[in-house]
Amino acid sequence: SRELFVLTYGALVAQLCKDYEKDEDVNTCLDRMGYGIGVRLIDDFLARSAVKKCRSYSETADMIAQVAFKMYLGVTPRVSCSSAAGNEFSLILDKNPLVDFVEELPAERASLCYCNLLCGVIRGALEMVHLAAEVTFLQDRLKGDAVTEIGITFLRKAEDRKHKRN
Amino acid sequence: SRELFVLTYGALVAQLCKDYEKDEDVNTCLDRMGYGIGVRLIDDFLARSAVKKCRSYSETADMIAQVAFKMYLGVTPRVSCSSAAGNEFSLILDKNPLVDFVEELPAERASLCYCNLLCGVIRGALEMVHLAAEVTFLQDRLKGDAVTEIGITFLRKAEDRKHKRN
Repeated sequence: SRELFVLTYGALVAQLCKDYEKDEDVNTCLDRMGYGIGVRLIDDFLARSAVKKCRSYSETADMIAQVAFKMYLGVTPRVSCSSAAGNEFSLILDKNPLVDFVEELPAERASLCYCNLLCGVIRGALEMVHLAAEVTFLQDRLKGDAVTEIGITFLRKAEDRKHKRN
Repeated sequence: SRELFVLTYGALVAQLCKDYEKDEDVNTCLDRMGYGIGVRLIDDFLARSAVKKCRSYSETADMIAQVAFKMYLGVTPRVSCSSAAGNEFSLILDKNPLVDFVEELPAERASLCYCNLLCGVIRGALEMVHLAAEVTFLQDRLKGDAVTEIGITFLRKAEDRKHKRN
C-alpha cells in the first residue's frame, strides 16, 4: 500500500517549503535528496529485479520505466526517444501516484517541481551503474500539462567511456 | 516495494535534524506530521480494510496491529495489554521496516525517536474514529532495546463518551 508513502512524501515537500522560500531551492533540495536515495536504492533494485546489463540507452530507459517504476511506484510510464542522437528519452506518466493527495500547487509555489525527488533518484541510481544523466521534469500535470513527462538525457561522458571500452 | 518509502522517510528525518537542534523538537515535528497523515489515511484504511466497528479497545489495538501495520508496513506487531484498566496496549515489533537502512543513531541524537511519525499516524487515525489516545515509543531497537515497542493509551475522555452512549 503506497498511501503512507505518498502522504509522507507530501509532508517532506511541505517541510521543505517551510524551510526554503524559493521554489528553486526546494527543487534543488528534493533533487539532492533523491540522488542520495538513488545511490542507495540501486543495490536493492539490482538484487530484486535480477536484470541483465543494458546494452543501450534505449534498453536502460525501458528498464527504468517497465521494471523500476513498476516496482517502486506501481505504474509503468510510456517511453519515447526524443533525439536523433538516441541519448534523450521521455518517461510519460498519465497517472502519477506521488500526487494522489495533491489537488493543485498553491499559487505562490508555481515553480515547484513537486516530484523532483524522482529525478534525483533516477540520476543517482544511473550514476551508480556508470551512466551520467540529466533528469528533469518537462511536463507536469500539477502545472496544468496534459501528462507528466520526465526527461532523461544521457551525457556524452558516459558515451565516450563506452566507445573506449568497445 | 517499501524501500523507496523507507529511504524517503530517512530523508525527511535527516531534514528535520538539520532544521531543529533539539531531538525533542524533531520528535514533536514528526509526531505532528504523522498526525496530519493519520487524519487523511483513515479514509483509505477504512475503505480498503472493510473492517467493522471495533467494540473494545482490545479489538482496536488488534486491528491496528494485524490489519493496519500489515497493510502499510508489511509487518504485524504482537499486541499486549499492559493495564488492569484495559486501556493501555503495547505493539511490539521484532522487526521495524522503517529503520531498514539505519544502522544506529548518531551519538548527538540519542533522544531522537526516529519513527515518531508512526505514533502521530496512529493518534491521528484514532482521533478520526473518535478515540483519543496517547501514543509513544516505549522501547526502540535503535536505542539498544531488545524490541521496538509502541505504547497506546486510550484516554478516559473517549471512555466516558462511550459510557454515556451505553
